[in-house]
This record gives sequence, C-alpha cells and structure tokens, in this order.
Amino acid sequence: MVKRNAFYAQSGGVTAVINASASGLIETARAHSDQIGKVYAGRNGIIGALTEDLIDTTAETAADISRLRHTPAGAFGSCRYKLKSVDSHRAQYERLIEVFRAHDIGYFFYNGGGDSADTCLKVSQLSEAMGYPIVAVHVPKTVDNDLPLTDCCPGFGSVAKYVAVSMREAGFDVASMAKTSTKVFVLEVMGRHAGWITAACGLAAEAEGEAPQLLLFPEIAFDAEAFLARVKTCVERHGYCAIGVSEGLQSADGKFLAEAGSVDAFGHAQLGGVGPTIAQLIKERHGYKYHWAVADYLQRAARHIASRTDVEQAVAVGRAAVELALAGNNAVMASIVRLADKPYRWEVGSVPLKSVANVEKKMPREFITADGFGITEACRSYLSPLIEGEDYPPYRAGLPDYVRLKNVAVDKKLPSYAL
Amino acid sequence: MVKRNAFYAQSGGVTAVINASASGLIETARAHSDQIGKVYAGRNGIIGALTEDLIDTTAETAADISRLRHTPAGAFGSCRYKLKSVDSHRAQYERLIEVFRAHDIGYFFYNGGGDSADTCLKVSQLSEAMGYPIVAVHVPKTVDNDLPLTDCCPGFGSVAKYVAVSMREAGFDVASMAKTSTKVFVLEVMGRHAGWITAACGLAAEAEGEAPQLLLFPEIAFDAEAFLARVKTCVERHGYCAIGVSEGLQSADGKFLAEAGSVDAFGHAQLGGVGPTIAQLIKERHGYKYHWAVADYLQRAARHIASRTDVEQAVAVGRAAVELALAGNNAVMASIVRLADKPYRWEVGSVPLKSVANVEKKMPREFITADGFGITEACRSYLSPLIEGEDYPPYRAGLPDYVRLKNVAVDKKLPSYAL
Repeated sequence: MVKRNAFYAQSGGVTAVINASASGLIETARAHSDQIGKVYAGRNGIIGALTEDLIDTTAETAADISRLRHTPAGAFGSCRYKLKSVDSHRAQYERLIEVFRAHDIGYFFYNGGGDSADTCLKVSQLSEAMGYPIVAVHVPKTVDNDLPLTDCCPGFGSVAKYVAVSMREAGFDVASMAKTSTKVFVLEVMGRHAGWITAACGLAAEAEGEAPQLLLFPEIAFDAEAFLARVKTCVERHGYCAIGVSEGLQSADGKFLAEAGSVDAFGHAQLGGVGPTIAQLIKERHGYKYHWAVADYLQRAARHIASRTDVEQAVAVGRAAVELALAGNNAVMASIVRLADKPYRWEVGSVPLKSVANVEKKMPREFITADGFGITEACRSYLSPLIEGEDYPPYRAGLPDYVRLKNVAVDKKLPSYAL
Repeated sequence: MVKRNAFYAQSGGVTAVINASASGLIETARAHSDQIGKVYAGRNGIIGALTEDLIDTTAETAADISRLRHTPAGAFGSCRYKLKSVDSHRAQYERLIEVFRAHDIGYFFYNGGGDSADTCLKVSQLSEAMGYPIVAVHVPKTVDNDLPLTDCCPGFGSVAKYVAVSMREAGFDVASMAKTSTKVFVLEVMGRHAGWITAACGLAAEAEGEAPQLLLFPEIAFDAEAFLARVKTCVERHGYCAIGVSEGLQSADGKFLAEAGSVDAFGHAQLGGVGPTIAQLIKERHGYKYHWAVADYLQRAARHIASRTDVEQAVAVGRAAVELALAGNNAVMASIVRLADKPYRWEVGSVPLKSVANVEKKMPREFITADGFGITEACRSYLSPLIEGEDYPPYRAGLPDYVRLKNVAVDKKLPSYAL
C-alpha cells in the first residue's frame, strides 16, 4: 500500500468530546505510520481544505494529543459551511482535489453531524466523479443526537448528563425556595428539531413528583392551555414546578415560540429565548414567581461533567474511522451499535454514508408519554446508559487544564482561493 | 450547664454548600449531646419557627446528615422573610419566644446572608429585650460574597468555580466557531449589587486574549460606547469576544439594564435578561452573530463542580457556630479569616453580628482594572484560592446521589399562627 497523508476536520457545532474523537483518530493514524503519513487538520473545518489552511498535527506532542481527550470544543476550529452539489459547484471540488493532490491526501475524515455527513459523502464521490482517489469516512458528532443508524451520537451523552445533572440541582434549589419565593423554574435546552436533550432533562426525576415535572418537546406542538393547567396542578401538589423546554418548541401552526430572526449558514433559524417566554406566560396566567436558565454553549462545552460512556464512544469512533479507511471502506460513517441495555454493552460498527446524510432522527413517539409532557420507561432505558460514568479532566489552580494546541500551519503550495 | 435544644434554619437564596454547613452544625451538636438536646430545623427557615413547623433532625441517620455535605440547596427549605423591628412588631417576637419556650430552645443558628444576619441579630436581642434567654449565632452563606468582616462567604467559592469553569468551556467553544459563525458569547451571572461572581468569570483567562475578554460589573456604570468599541477591537484581534456580565449591571443613571419589574419579599427588584440585552446591542451595532447563556439557579446549585475549599469552609462555619454558642458567644457570626494567600491558609473566627447585619461588601475598586472591564492581579490573588480543589459528590446511574431527608415534623404544642 502506498503511504498517503490524511485530512481531518471538525464541522458544525462543537461538543464536549469532539476532540476526544480527534485524539482517537490521530493516535490511531500515528500507530499506522506505515500506511498513513501525516494527519493534516483543516483549520476551521472544510474551509481549511478549500483555503489550503492546513495544520500539521505532527507538530503536537503525543501528550498534547492525549490531552485532547479531556478538552472540549474544536481544537482545530470548526465551521458552518456546507459544500454545494458537484454538478452546480464543480470549481469548488476541483479546488479540493487540487489541495488534496498538493499535499498527497488520500484519506478524508470529517467529524460532524447530518449536514457534515452530506459534505463527507460528496467528497467520497470525488474518486468516481472526478478521478481523484480518496477514501472518505465520517466520524459522527452532534449534541442533537439526530443522526440515523447509530445508537447515539458522540457529544450527546455529555450534554444529556449535563442537563440531567443541572435539572436535578436546580430542582433541589427551587424546591427549597418555593414556600415564599420562586415556584417555577424553566431550563431551556438545545435540540432544534429533535427532543433528545429535552428528554435527557427527564432523567433527573427518579420518582413521581421529582423535578422536572414537565417537559416541552419540539416534536409535540405546544398546547398552552393544557400546559398551564398542568403547571397549576403541579405547583398545588408539589409546591413548585420545574420545566425543561427545547429551544425548538413550536406552536400548532409550526412557528417557533422564540424566533430570534437570524439564520445560520445552513439556513437554519437561530433560536433562543423560549425559556423566558414560557416563564413569562406562566407568570401572566398564574402569578407564580419564576426563574429561568438558558444553558446555551455551557451545555455542549461542559467537559467537566462529561459522560464517561460518551467520551469512550467518541474516542472509539475516531479510532474506528482510521481502521475503516485503512480497510478500504469509502463513504461510510463509524457508528455505535447497542448490544444490550442493562448493563449497557456496545461496539463500533459502520453504516453507508448515503443512508445517513441529511436524515434527521427525531424522538420516537413511544419515548414521549401519552400526555406529551414526559418521557416513558422505554426512553429511560435508552437514555440512561448514555450518561453513565464520570470522566473528570485534570485540574490546575481550581480550573480544568484544557490543552491549547500549537496548530502550526503547513506551508502553502498553491495560489490563494476565495471562498 | 442546663441542656437545651437548638433551632437551625436556612434563609434566603440557597447555595451548593449551605447543607454542608448544616451537616457540620448538626454533627457537632450531636457530638455535644451533654450540652445540646435536639436540633430542630425550621421548615422553610424562620417561617418554621413562627408557625411552629419544626423538623426533628434526630430522625435522620448519621449517614444522611453526612450526605448533606455533598447535597446542594436547602434540605429543610429556605425562605425570603425578614423580621421587622422588635419595636414595631412585638407580637411576632412574642410568638417566637412562645415557640422557643414550648420546645425548650436555647440556641438559635441562622444560616444566611446579610438580610438574615439582621434577623439573627434581632433574635439575639430577645434575651435583653424580652427576657428570654437565648444564644444566637449566625452561619454565613451567600453566593454574592457580600458579607463584611469575613474573608469570603461559604457558597461563593463554588459559584465562582462554576462560572470560571463554564466561561473557560464556553470560551473554547466560541473560539472554535468564530470563523464562520458565533463571534460573541455573553454569560449573565448573579450578583445583584456586588461584582464578585462577575469577577470570578475572569479567572477563566490565564493569558492576554483568553476568554473572557470583557467583564461588566454592577459597580461600574455601563458605558455602551466604550464597551462596543472594546468588543469590536477584541473580535478584530482575537476573532471572537466572550463577555461576563452581572445581572445587576446599571446605566449611569442607576437603572438596571434588565429590570423584570417584580420585587422579592425584601423589596429587591427581580432581575434577569441583561445577557440577551447586551448580546442584542452588539448585534445591532456590529452585526456579529451571538450566543448568550443565563446560568441562573444552575450556578448556585452546581454542587457537582463545588470548590473543595468552599465545602470545607461551609462545614467549618457550621461546626464553629455550635462551638461559639457553647462558649456563650451571643450575637456573633462565624467568619473565615485568611492567614495567607499562596498557599492559601485560613481559620475560623467570629465577628459581632451588629457589624455584619445590613452591610453589603462590594468589590473594591482596586480589584477592577482601570478601564472597568477586567480584574486586577490583586483580585486574582484574592479569588484564586477560593475555587481551589474539587469535591465531587457520589454518583448513581450517572447522576449525583443527593440526599432527600425524611424531614419529620415535631408535634405542635401551640395554637396555629398566621404570618
């Protein structure tokens, strides 16, 4: 086998464990130095490939690559940038091939979610469409847990753990205060179209009446009257009410309850603010004093409370991506296969990228209680293992000791390119 | 010494470690069973005393009292309720004495902040004013860190650690995204009038240019133009800008930037929403895509990332309160005395309550940089030790295993009382 270099890039919203995938991938590539030359990382994702802004990961020590395992966010920079189709934007693909050829890149590893899987699929087709030999493997990552054909998505388990822990803690807090003060607490969480993170809030409650008492899923059209009635019953029965709400909560006519008005590079609306909206609605109707929290980036960057299961799976898919590529698998995604619920057993598999790209896996209806405000036992059985175990980062001076890589640029060989 | 019972209550906003003080206090009282009978806890703070709603803590096992050390929020319920003056509301104090006498309570331990210190002081004066012998000791607690005459307030160190960790993590996140997406991240934190928590966000940055690049303190009148100019410079220089802002940020005319319009039982305005306000302001002027988070209760309930220093101090002041009372100290507060910065050494002391009640300790000006947007080295030297060390709670099924007490009510002996 001819030894060729590899390209690795992080794409889309980052997570607490995407760097753990990077560490697994780079370490495995280094272990196969007979088959893979250097691993070049794209600075800011695929943009780094287009602009020939490559990072030479061989400049990083083994110790620092290992520290990626406990460092959140995207160590090489990520991007929100989706390649257009080969037919309509052939020049863009020609540029990619030009860069790949200039740096002898034969392996393409893309670490992202659904939109990124589509990009990875397009690159995998370069061999056939444009005669450039490349093996493209997708490394799954998304806090939204909405990729199909994998038991879960690395990144999700740690967000799930964060929101469940936070909800349990805030639930204890509001219960303490409810007699004379706050009676309603609302936690807004991520998950634009899929309610997996909202569902994970529900893990905080182990018995009837424990926080959170109500969940508002993006899959269930918001029924204000039914919801307000449930809040009242809850406060009268338990003294307080804790609510987990998805940023993507929609009314029956399909409108987001909190539309910020701007859109991201993929054309998705930028959301935020449904938490305060819901809290205010309750205040207006029932007069209850409220508090609300919007965790936003805190939830997906919270490496300090990452799920050990999630970290291990993130490392494993990174490692598997290299092994799949070396075995000649093009256009596949490394996946997590669940072998058993309790105790949880899993292994890494692979699935064809064409079945993954642009498919969004929402919560199955049977994971949501009939009334639409809670999670079922089936949902708990699915979710619980994903938050199992702790994997604390090392601390220095009271703070997590996260690595900042050197990120040395590879010398450019080509003329510059405007995106 | 005649053996008498003790009353303990939690007051005001709860914290990640107020129960740690409770554990230290109850365990120490139990160790002095020759001098102290039962510890009765007020259900929902001082309200429990007024309504004779007492909890018999002897019904709790030693193991469960020990578990309070790692359980956030107020295990016996807290309240926002301030006693009026003895002169104007004599009947209320007569009721207190009636309840204390009915249950042979000779020790009053109140675990709270500045407003609560005032209540504790009033109770301490019952001996003299109304001829009922009682020893009242205050146990400091407040995330705001605004009590005078103590190095710090138990509860603050853990919030400080939470916001510093969260800011570091979110800073890594936005730095990853900034090339094509989010350029500004705003974290809104607690601290109505005192900027201690805002300052703690600053610990996340260890070198020039690291997040957070800007802090907005309640002590510094908000200068929108100067701030917006700094945000622009920061984004141009570092690619992104992370900002920590106090919920109590005020304009030059003394108005809160985000006034929710409602007031709590102490007459304080209920705040929230300055984070999104600041983010929107930046968007309007500079067009930068933003994200914002409001941690709210998550920050003060975050026992999962508590500071070990804070936990140890919380236990220590609970323990000391009993020892102070047994030594006959009335109308005092247990305090933390700093002996050295680095390595941090501290001991427990005591200060007269009349010097503590209703005094609010704000950030000294020399802890804030001249431009008003950062913290000085002096501030770092003060804050750093307070977030030192981790003290993880035990986990079960992926979640912190917090204790829920039995909270058995003591039989009532008196007619009911309307608040």
